[in-house]
Amino acid sequence: MPSIDITQPTLLVNFERVKRNILRMAVKSRQQGIRFRPHFKTHQSAIIGDSFREQGVTAITVSSVNMALYFSRHGWDDITIAFPTNLRQISAINELAKKIHLGVLVENKDTVEFLGSHLIAPVDVWIEIDEGSHRSGIRWDQPDQVLSLAKEIRKSSLLRARGILTHAGRIYCAGSTSEIDYIYHESVGRMNSLRRFLSGMGFELEVSVGDTPGCTICTEFGPVDEIRPGNFVFYDAVQLALGVCKLDDIAAILACPIVARYPQRNEVVIYGGAVHFSKDTVNIDGQACYGLVVSYQEGEQEAVGHDWISLIPGGTVNRLTQEHGVVSLPDEMINQVKVGELLYVIPAHVCLTVSALGRYVTTNGQIIPTLNME
Amino acid sequence: MPSIDITQPTLLVNFERVKRNILRMAVKSRQQGIRFRPHFKTHQSAIIGDSFREQGVTAITVSSVNMALYFSRHGWDDITIAFPTNLRQISAINELAKKIHLGVLVENKDTVEFLGSHLIAPVDVWIEIDEGSHRSGIRWDQPDQVLSLAKEIRKSSLLRARGILTHAGRIYCAGSTSEIDYIYHESVGRMNSLRRFLSGMGFELEVSVGDTPGCTICTEFGPVDEIRPGNFVFYDAVQLALGVCKLDDIAAILACPIVARYPQRNEVVIYGGAVHFSKDTVNIDGQACYGLVVSYQEGEQEAVGHDWISLIPGGTVNRLTQEHGVVSLPDEMINQVKVGELLYVIPAHVCLTVSALGRYVTTNGQIIPTLNME
Repeated sequence: MPSIDITQPTLLVNFERVKRNILRMAVKSRQQGIRFRPHFKTHQSAIIGDSFREQGVTAITVSSVNMALYFSRHGWDDITIAFPTNLRQISAINELAKKIHLGVLVENKDTVEFLGSHLIAPVDVWIEIDEGSHRSGIRWDQPDQVLSLAKEIRKSSLLRARGILTHAGRIYCAGSTSEIDYIYHESVGRMNSLRRFLSGMGFELEVSVGDTPGCTICTEFGPVDEIRPGNFVFYDAVQLALGVCKLDDIAAILACPIVARYPQRNEVVIYGGAVHFSKDTVNIDGQACYGLVVSYQEGEQEAVGHDWISLIPGGTVNRLTQEHGVVSLPDEMINQVKVGELLYVIPAHVCLTVSALGRYVTTNGQIIPTLNME
Repeated sequence: MPSIDITQPTLLVNFERVKRNILRMAVKSRQQGIRFRPHFKTHQSAIIGDSFREQGVTAITVSSVNMALYFSRHGWDDITIAFPTNLRQISAINELAKKIHLGVLVENKDTVEFLGSHLIAPVDVWIEIDEGSHRSGIRWDQPDQVLSLAKEIRKSSLLRARGILTHAGRIYCAGSTSEIDYIYHESVGRMNSLRRFLSGMGFELEVSVGDTPGCTICTEFGPVDEIRPGNFVFYDAVQLALGVCKLDDIAAILACPIVARYPQRNEVVIYGGAVHFSKDTVNIDGQACYGLVVSYQEGEQEAVGHDWISLIPGGTVNRLTQEHGVVSLPDEMINQVKVGELLYVIPAHVCLTVSALGRYVTTNGQIIPTLNME
């Protein structure tokens, strides 16, 4: 039994690994003179935010107005909401704009006009660019549209055209780390074509990019002004499967009570379902699963430089219903585990797991709340 | 704009539909003299629980110890936790056992022994049976194992062998309503084979079954003592696609702000992502999606007997990331919707959406919290 009495699905965080992950990314950015504006949507916690402050981070990224409000309450005063502006939250946006240096994303004229007529304090405006991933933003190959929006922005005295921003989500489809490197730089290249074009038209804009795979794998960030990775604070099974991180970089695992054991089908059932993991998957040997089973011994091997967890070959979370997880285990392990013990899992996508659980426990037993607990 | 100011992804509940759904299932159970022990994991709300009380419901099902604690605080005193007993929550289980009529699930000897030596108040014990769905429980075709567990249960004075219980999860793979009917009755048949065998061995046990597809579609519940459907209180896109409910039975839709519009790709992006919908899918015309777009006009057509929502053909939520939803819309609609307006979606699996959001708003503007808000 760990020193903290874990009775329910609990995200265990190794703070030493968290600090090392932050340090590495902070140093890498600093050495290249590039602003490190980490995405706080992964950890969503003021306490983990403090570890970024220790590395000199003063500017952050969030994915919702609520998250901006939370971190502004916790002393952060330079926040970009990296999500297309939700006009329905204009009063909260104004509350933030009055108080902090706020950055918002726009990608259509309606939003620019609305902001122009409803804002009561200045904001930085980042034009969101779709660099090829086709989620949100103006397509990178439609520079005239970007220019036209930049001109709209200039019409309002409260909107400051700060830069162009993108998220290269397609990088998660890369088949190798060299492909990650390629996509990252292709994306940076597309953003810089756009920047040059806009510069020629009288708009001097910054470039903001950066996801965890690209920022971890690439040695050089290239001609950009800031990077915004988030997941790297914990990493997860998706990053591990992509080859982005090593096992020892993983900083968060989900501890789940074993509630049933089926040696005849090499499975156990855990208390840990869709409402804990959420339901993103990772492909392991061609099979989609929700997480990878690891062994973890409390107190042992936690020093940086030694693995604190080990992968259990063949240990995968194969099915999730609301509260149940069905987990495959290898022969050796299925005969050792007991009902009532904890099983440890690297979640497929830790950002969603954090959001579902709303808190962590460190391996030292400290409870860390997130904004969902406030 | 609806009378309630919706600024963020919000689950809108039509209380008239909720009441009608409850009434129908309550009447159907009452007419057949079968105990209606609805599963409260779908709505997770004391206020919606009250609507069940109005229909004479006194016994309920939940899926976690925490949910049992919540509903016991709200006056429910006959609760079955339909999840393999989590030994690590024994103190909370004892707290409940002292206070209410508590039912727990067991399916292995370790759990029975643990309960026998740690319980301080009596509980009803339901032996969980795997009727063919292979999630948790003793296989229905291994009666000797069930008998052996029943004998173990009898050894403890605080454990009362109340019955055998199953969840026929495989019913969600049915290709037609007649197949739903077939699976439901096959499952009931398997449970009764087991009951007869155990009766011959001196164990008189109840049979507890029932999921929303089976209990909605089947005219007769067959030789069972209680049914435990849950989802029917709202229904959702999965149930609609299975042919279990009609559009007008749907009682909950997710209202999401539109934040970006892409006529050239027939898509909009909504504020409504994996942290709001969760990520269960429903197959529509061979394509997995996360929800179905509907039109909804506040105040209109809400009277029972008229549809309160209409399906938008071709309107589906195709991709979800943490906060973004990418939604396909037909030509007519893509040119009408505006950034800042609300888009309404029937979620694929409403139980997970409820759990993710933690509250509802009724179409009359009342805010209804769930246990996640306490």
